[in-house]
This record gives sequence, C-alpha cells and structure tokens, in this order.
Amino acid sequence: MFKAIVSAETLKTALDSVSVLVDECKIHLNEDGISIRAVDPANVGMVDLSLDATAFESYEADGGLIGVNLTRLEDIAGMADSGQLIELELDEETRKLHIQIDGLEYTLALIDPDSIRQEPDIPDLDLPAEVVIEGKDIDRAVKAADMVSDHIALGVDATDDQFYVQAAGDTDDVHLELDDGDLIDLQSGDAESLFSLDYLKDMNKAIANDGEVTMELGEEFPVKLHFEIAEGSGNVTFMLAPRIQSD
Amino acid sequence: MFKAIVSAETLKTALDSVSVLVDECKIHLNEDGISIRAVDPANVGMVDLSLDATAFESYEADGGLIGVNLTRLEDIAGMADSGQLIELELDEETRKLHIQIDGLEYTLALIDPDSIRQEPDIPDLDLPAEVVIEGKDIDRAVKAADMVSDHIALGVDATDDQFYVQAAGDTDDVHLELDDGDLIDLQSGDAESLFSLDYLKDMNKAIANDGEVTMELGEEFPVKLHFEIAEGSGNVTFMLAPRIQSD
Amino acid sequence: MFKAIVSAETLKTALDSVSVLVDECKIHLNEDGISIRAVDPANVGMVDLSLDATAFESYEADGGLIGVNLTRLEDIAGMADSGQLIELELDEETRKLHIQIDGLEYTLALIDPDSIRQEPDIPDLDLPAEVVIEGKDIDRAVKAADMVSDHIALGVDATDDQFYVQAAGDTDDVHLELDDGDLIDLQSGDAESLFSLDYLKDMNKAIANDGEVTMELGEEFPVKLHFEIAEGSGNVTFMLAPRIQSD
Repeated sequence: MFKAIVSAETLKTALDSVSVLVDECKIHLNEDGISIRAVDPANVGMVDLSLDATAFESYEADGGLIGVNLTRLEDIAGMADSGQLIELELDEETRKLHIQIDGLEYTLALIDPDSIRQEPDIPDLDLPAEVVIEGKDIDRAVKAADMVSDHIALGVDATDDQFYVQAAGDTDDVHLELDDGDLIDLQSGDAESLFSLDYLKDMNKAIANDGEVTMELGEEFPVKLHFEIAEGSGNVTFMLAPRIQSD
Repeated sequence: MFKAIVSAETLKTALDSVSVLVDECKIHLNEDGISIRAVDPANVGMVDLSLDATAFESYEADGGLIGVNLTRLEDIAGMADSGQLIELELDEETRKLHIQIDGLEYTLALIDPDSIRQEPDIPDLDLPAEVVIEGKDIDRAVKAADMVSDHIALGVDATDDQFYVQAAGDTDDVHLELDDGDLIDLQSGDAESLFSLDYLKDMNKAIANDGEVTMELGEEFPVKLHFEIAEGSGNVTFMLAPRIQSD
Repeated sequence: MFKAIVSAETLKTALDSVSVLVDECKIHLNEDGISIRAVDPANVGMVDLSLDATAFESYEADGGLIGVNLTRLEDIAGMADSGQLIELELDEETRKLHIQIDGLEYTLALIDPDSIRQEPDIPDLDLPAEVVIEGKDIDRAVKAADMVSDHIALGVDATDDQFYVQAAGDTDDVHLELDDGDLIDLQSGDAESLFSLDYLKDMNKAIANDGEVTMELGEEFPVKLHFEIAEGSGNVTFMLAPRIQSD
C-alpha cells in the first residue's frame, strides 16, 4: 500500500538528486518515508536519498518496493507548477503508479525492481577532514575547473586551515582557497583527492546554490557530500570515488 | 486598395492561428476586415480566421485578394515590439505589400493567389456536445497526452456530464476529466473521437492560456474549436478531422 | 608590470568589442590604460579599443605587451557577476596572467604576441558625412536587412538631409530613412557605400542598444563607427571596408 500527496517542488528536488546518476531506480516505500540508494553504471558515483513522511502533505505506506523510470517520473512531475500538489497511489495488482495533478491522471507502468542494478552499500568512512560549504561555492569551483580540465582536486590544508580546489589544464590552472571566514564550518585535517569532473558536475546540478553542503574528505579517498532537501525533511548523500593521482 | 494600421500584437496573434497549419495563404481584404481560410496539405486540419476592421487602428479595403508567405510576414511582424504599430499598404501595380514599422519600410513580394492551395469549405456540422473550456486546460491535456501517445481521444460522457481526454500509450496512460465545475460551460451529449496529437499541438500553440475555447464534439466526427482574438474583434475556428479508432 | 582591478561588466564590454572580430589579440598595457587594435583574417573589419586607467578600480602598468586568447578570457570574465570585481596580475617570468574573482584564481597562459596577426593601422579618412545615431536604430536596421540580403547599403542624402539604410533581396527590400529629428546629429554630405552584413551584425553585437554611435560615411568608402564604453572611460572604433556595388 502506498498513497501520498507531495508538492511538485519537493518531488522534483528529490528525484533530481538521483536522476543525475541513474535513469532507473528502486524506491523503498517505508512507513516513515521513502528512500532510494543508487550507483551509476561505472560504480563511481553513489547516492543515498531519504525523504521523510513529514515532507509530504499526506503519506501512507507499508514497506513496499517499486522500480521506476526516473526520467519519465521527472517529466510527469515537470508538468506541475512548483506550488501544485502531486498525488501518488500505487495499484498493487496492476503494478502501476497513479499520479494525479489537479484532475489530470497519469498511469505510470512500474519496472520490475529485480531488473534494476543492485543498490550499493554506502560505506562508513572515517574521513579526517570535514568542510561545510555553501552550494554556490561548489558551483563556482566546478564551473571554473571545467574550463581547464576533466579532473578536480579537493583538499584541506591542515596547517593553514584551508579548504582548496585545484584543477590543472594543459596551459591554464584554476585554484580556489576558502578559509574559516569563507566556509560555514571546517574540521581541519590533511586531505586531498582527485575526482572526475563529470560526476561532480552532475552532482552539483542537484545542489541548491543557497544550500549548505557538508563535505567529508580524505587522502586519496572518496568524497562524501551531504545536504538537506525539503526544508530538512529529506537528506541526500553523494559519494564519489577518487581518481588515482598521477604525478 | 488596401491600407491599414494594426498593433503588432494583434497582427502576430492573427497570423499565428493560420501559420500553425500552412506556410502560405490567401488573405481576403474585405471592406469590413480581413479573412483567411486554409487547410493543411493532408486535408486534416482547417482554419477559418476573420479579423474585423475594428481590430485595426485604421482600415481601408475594397475587396481584393492577396497571397502571402506567412512565415515571412510573421518574421517581419516579429521585428516590432508588441505595442508598436504596423502599417500595411498594398501597391496594386507591383503586387507588393509595403510594411512600415516606425520608419522602417519592408517591401514584401506577394504570391500569386492561384498558386496557393484552394481554400476549404468548412462544413456546418450539427454536433451533439459542446464544451467551453479554458485554454490552459487544453494546453495541459495536450502536453500530458504527448508524453505517452501520438493520438488523443476527446469525449463527453452524457451520463456523468463530463468532458474527458484520454491518451493510451504502450505502457502508460493519461486521463483528464473535467465536469461542470471545471468547465466554463457544458452542453452534454455522448461524443468521443480520436485525433492526431500533432495537429492538436499545433492548434494549441495559437490558443492563449487565459482564453476561452468553445469545442464542438461528436461520435467519430471532426472537432471544432472556436475562440476570439483581438479582444473579440477577431474569430478563429479550427476544424480537425478524426482518426479511425481501432479497438 | 601589470596589476589591475576592474568590474566584470567593464571588462566584458571591452573584450566583446574586440572578440566580435578576432579570437586572439595583443593588449598594450600602457601607463594610462590598455589599448587593443585588431583586424579580422580577411582584412575587412578593424577595431581600435582604448580603456583608460580611470575605467579600472585600480591600475598599474609600465608599457608591456601581452597576447591573449580572447575567447578564453571572455569565458573567465563570464564566471563573474556583473557587479563583481576581477583582479588581473601579470607574472612576467612565467608569462601567465593571474585572474582573481572573489577568491577564485585562474592562471591564464599567454600567447606569444609575435604569433598573433599584425595590428592594423587604422587610416584617417576625411569622410564627407557624419551621423550620430542610437544603437537601437543600428540594431533594427541590421536585423531587418538580414531578412532579405547579405549586404546593406548605408548612405546620406545631402539634399534631403537624411541618413538611409537599404537592403535589396531577390524579391523583398528593406529601407530605413532617418532625418534630423530621428538622429542625435547629422553632418550632411552625399555618401553611400555597400557593406557585408555579416561584419555589421558582428559589430552590432558590441553596440549597446541605449548607446550613441558616431558613424562616418563616404562614397564607396569604409564606414567608421565610434562609441564610448565604461561610461566614457573607454572608446571603440570599428572600421569596415566597403563592398564594390554592382549595378
């Protein structure tokens, strides 16, 4: 059983954070909210999303699991204005999701969850550095790095208490340093890892410019990005595997 | 003789309703206003437009007929801001239309009307159902249907006094029901016909979201869409032939 | 030595006026401001730009010369919001330009000035007619002419004291006449020359719609377009060679 009403804006924001990595996903319809875990085909980027029942106008579920075409579901949600409500109801027999937007009913065929790539286990990593940064600074860094390279180094310099971003191109370089004053918070510890810019660009699309992102970093370790959605009623964690640094 | 001044907005709106179906058309320069009838090359969609002399700032004509390249005329009108006035004057000798926008003069070569597809006779149909609906509801229905199918069924259920839209795709369906309360008016009578979505999408482009559309429907009959333009000084009728429903 | 701070808007405006003609250019870092002269590969369009030290928030230079990839420099400037400041500093040893935007540092490799096309000498021409015209009128004329032709004639009729624009297509024509009342100023003298519309369209991109342009014209002579940027702290001159008129 699954029956819920949610604002178009909240649904779109939640789906966006997953669709930047995968086209299809499994959605857990838990009693206290929905959750999604997914990993991209190359096993480089992972997402863990939870959207609590409190993010919905109304919410009833008893623990089912559905498989959905995310692109299609986003297109449907895109028909609604931001302020409009979207009603979702699962028909257990036909395995279809009924989606209502102001009288318009869309019947979405679900996908067999077993046909969707297995959900990843997102490991607990005890990373030495943690940075709390504004979404717009990630946006600036990613866009600037993209002008010169396919890779981006994210690091923390424990001596200077600075978070830095570095991208080295064939002729040009991009460098950004943010200290205590520029950051929302910094738990210093030496860290530097190199990442594929393509993945970080995709993840950046799901991060609001005026949002806060907690970034955990290590030495040649994955980076974890945590941020809230739906005014705190939802949480997103991205994890991105590092590239080997060739010096 | 033809000499007229019209606001860019009015001219663009009028031309739009014809150009969604054809690239060239004949324009009747009647004493009391202009009129255009046209049918698309496949004989599926027809338009009948009249724009009264009262829609113009000034208007003089004595019953001539000209052939115009609509795409070109729309591009010219597009150079004017919405509030600007466009002066039109026919040079009978050279068969050119002089178009002035704030000192800028464009001389448009006309097309021999005999080289343009014959104007259709739009038949009087005594259709059993009539729905008066907001433009934005047509827009929603067409866009939603377009996500799942190439066809769209429009119908009226006389028992429930409801107008409905139905589109069936390979896996997904779209359904919209509007009753008395959702519609501006409903003259009930059983009706259902299937239409090509491509044509309805084109016609929808010419319908203002905040406008009222009167829709006449029958059982496997053409649909007629009537709406006003230029604050009531102009009328547009679209007629769209049905597709055979295969069950 | 070169070290300067300038608003993103001023830098973008200045670079735009050169990048419409060339992708790379030499920049003279004079004591009293920067200057650029460039000619397009076909030797048809030239630009002469000066941006005084007063256009900068701070400015120090001692007469150096650098070669830059304009497209790249514009992309970098494009990362800044209009109101943001851009810091420029030349590293003489590495021949790199350090560009800072709110903590983000971009290191731009410079180009050997000797590898860039030679700077043109923009000749003094004693042209018989001079028109001072609003940028938006140039914009209208160029866009209208572009609908019918690849060429545009610019002329002054000394008898009627009128500036005119004429474009003749295969079937359609565009004509614009502006007299004393429409122009900001007119120093009359017979003049008419034909120009490539592609070049004039590019130059038009660098002209603000609400700006004033002084246009010098002759009989089958180049046209010169002068306008100010950066609230008068910068000057741009375009010179465009005429096409031979075939009658």
